Amino acid sequence: MKLAVLPGDGIGPEIVAQAVKVLEVLNKDGMKIEMEHAPIGGAGYDAARDPLPEATLKLARAADAVLLGAVGGPQYDTLDRPLRPERGLLRIRKELNLFANLRPALLYPELASASTLKPEVVAGLDIMIVRELTGDVYFGQPRGIEMRPGPDGRAERVGFNTMIYSESEIRRVAHVAFGIAMKRGKRLCSVEKANVLECSELWREVVLEVARDYPEVELSSMYVDNAAMQLVRNPKQFDVIVTGNIFGDILSDQASMLSGSIGMLPSASLDENNKGMYEPIHGSAPDIAGKDIANPLATILSVAMMYRYTFADAATADRIENAVKKVIAQGYRTADIYTEGCKKVSCNQMGDAVVAAM
Amino acid sequence: MKLAVLPGDGIGPEIVAQAVKVLEVLNKDGMKIEMEHAPIGGAGYDAARDPLPEATLKLARAADAVLLGAVGGPQYDTLDRPLRPERGLLRIRKELNLFANLRPALLYPELASASTLKPEVVAGLDIMIVRELTGDVYFGQPRGIEMRPGPDGRAERVGFNTMIYSESEIRRVAHVAFGIAMKRGKRLCSVEKANVLECSELWREVVLEVARDYPEVELSSMYVDNAAMQLVRNPKQFDVIVTGNIFGDILSDQASMLSGSIGMLPSASLDENNKGMYEPIHGSAPDIAGKDIANPLATILSVAMMYRYTFADAATADRIENAVKKVIAQGYRTADIYTEGCKKVSCNQMGDAVVAAM
Ligand SMILES: CC(C)[C@H](C(=O)O)[C@@H](O)C(=O)O
Ligand SMILES: CC(C)[C@H](C(=O)O)[C@@H](O)C(=O)O
Repeated sequence: MKLAVLPGDGIGPEIVAQAVKVLEVLNKDGMKIEMEHAPIGGAGYDAARDPLPEATLKLARAADAVLLGAVGGPQYDTLDRPLRPERGLLRIRKELNLFANLRPALLYPELASASTLKPEVVAGLDIMIVRELTGDVYFGQPRGIEMRPGPDGRAERVGFNTMIYSESEIRRVAHVAFGIAMKRGKRLCSVEKANVLECSELWREVVLEVARDYPEVELSSMYVDNAAMQLVRNPKQFDVIVTGNIFGDILSDQASMLSGSIGMLPSASLDENNKGMYEPIHGSAPDIAGKDIANPLATILSVAMMYRYTFADAATADRIENAVKKVIAQGYRTADIYTEGCKKVSCNQMGDAVVAAM
Repeated sequence: MKLAVLPGDGIGPEIVAQAVKVLEVLNKDGMKIEMEHAPIGGAGYDAARDPLPEATLKLARAADAVLLGAVGGPQYDTLDRPLRPERGLLRIRKELNLFANLRPALLYPELASASTLKPEVVAGLDIMIVRELTGDVYFGQPRGIEMRPGPDGRAERVGFNTMIYSESEIRRVAHVAFGIAMKRGKRLCSVEKANVLECSELWREVVLEVARDYPEVELSSMYVDNAAMQLVRNPKQFDVIVTGNIFGDILSDQASMLSGSIGMLPSASLDENNKGMYEPIHGSAPDIAGKDIANPLATILSVAMMYRYTFADAATADRIENAVKKVIAQGYRTADIYTEGCKKVSCNQMGDAVVAAM
């Protein structure tokens, strides 16, 4: 098995280094994961004037899975748009056809106090958001900024993008979502804005069609504005949510914050054959980069997702997840999740603690 | 002054009747507001096979302001899309050019326990969201569902909408938002997704241009996914938020739920001349319609906004708002906001209590 390791920017290299420690332990135990590093995002720009250098894309294509840290930093904010770190991220998703983005929103009981929501509202929270990742207004054509006649007859700038989904795009991500629902609580909520948008109308129709293949799954539909309300009002009503790229961007970030500790949340982005890119949902946190204080657990848990989804090795995934639960139970905390009475550790120490717990 | 009263569906007629009581008291005190009723939404369909009957639109056009209850009900869900209640709502917004939707998210201290967020996170919450209401993917052309060649060469359905903003559309709503920020905490946060969308890129640029006219206002920009997180993490960081139609739809619903009592939240939708439509942000609640248990306070507070924005009569607006605060302080509660030890009242009784408090 080949793994492309793309540390990226900011805290990316530090947190990825801890995940690599975990992978090395597993390799010693008999797994054969070959790792190769390459730059992406700002690091890609620094190395090759491209947030997704040709060599990095080639490596990622050849690999069975990709482990990503995070991209972005203030020094890249003034670059031309196509050169900015996030464009590397968008392009690798598209190039590898990673259409299904799995983003769990999970509350660790020991960290419940970090949530801004009342304990009874979030205790036991365990939602899986399946976000379509290679379509929608993110990639739709036509798009651009151009001059058009304004209300007073004079030309003015107009900015536009195309929100678009085809039947096949909706169908494949719906199958992934129903499949995940089957392995969980068998409840799936499809989120769109079908009362206003034709794009959503088709989304709703196709999801209903796919539902016929999964009679055991209880399917509901919800408008995106209502979903944003329900995630505040009673988030535990959800098991699996499936939605488009832009609604998923918004709702998955909202949902992840419910737990209060986004430093703990991993993600997977899968293609048709379960090849995947794995990354923490948090950003590159340039302000704390290089200080060895970042939380590596989301990245380590991303490795667990990699074993679960790409390597179809649930036992190893469980082993990693249990090790993380154990270090949390033992009271180890990086600064972002620290509360009085716990043991404050560095990024490296947290990585070592997980390795020890394995 | 002429007011078009459009009760709509579900609890609409009951809650609007209480607001009318308040208006009648004010009329007795010397205000001269002429009221005329007309159907909209499902009621419009029942009366004239049109969710926005010609006569209703004519009345609304001729009026200085519009008071709306709520639209929608299960009996209309199977109608053809153009006949559904919400289409009446979208059309009247567009026809009257009500481009600036003002949605306060406010916590009443006495009702703080209704929030799912911890008291310290929401105590004193007072956000104003300014949502653009007549543009964006809601109204952009082209839009539709059509057949196109799929990945395997066979034709498949494709659903698409156009997310689009022109300079003049962004400029006018930005002016409204800066104007409101000037009267409040002088902090404005513009929310978009400029790292991905050209439409948002233009939004950000134009808002920055408009900012030059308001040197006293501290402007920030935030991506919509981050805004959805920040509204959970620390909602009190916001004073005024300005954003497009679809992002505003999602974020304003999320924000309103932070208070835990959406039965208390009014809204205004304004045109260039401060002509406005006023409505509670909650829906038509068909399940409790006709039972005289709905909360009329959001509708009554919508009348206060009407005095503030359309009639430029802040004193009367304050008078209504103070009356509402008083009944809350006196312990009057409709079922939706009832907690032990308070006085449970019906919709009608709540209307009477407000009138008495005036
Ligand atoms: C960085 C940005 C382009 C990206 C997105 O919008 O998809 C991010 O917000 C995410 O959710 O992974
Ligand atoms: C009913 C619907 C069309 C409407 C909207 O999306 O604008 C509603 O959600 C709102 O926010 O007023």
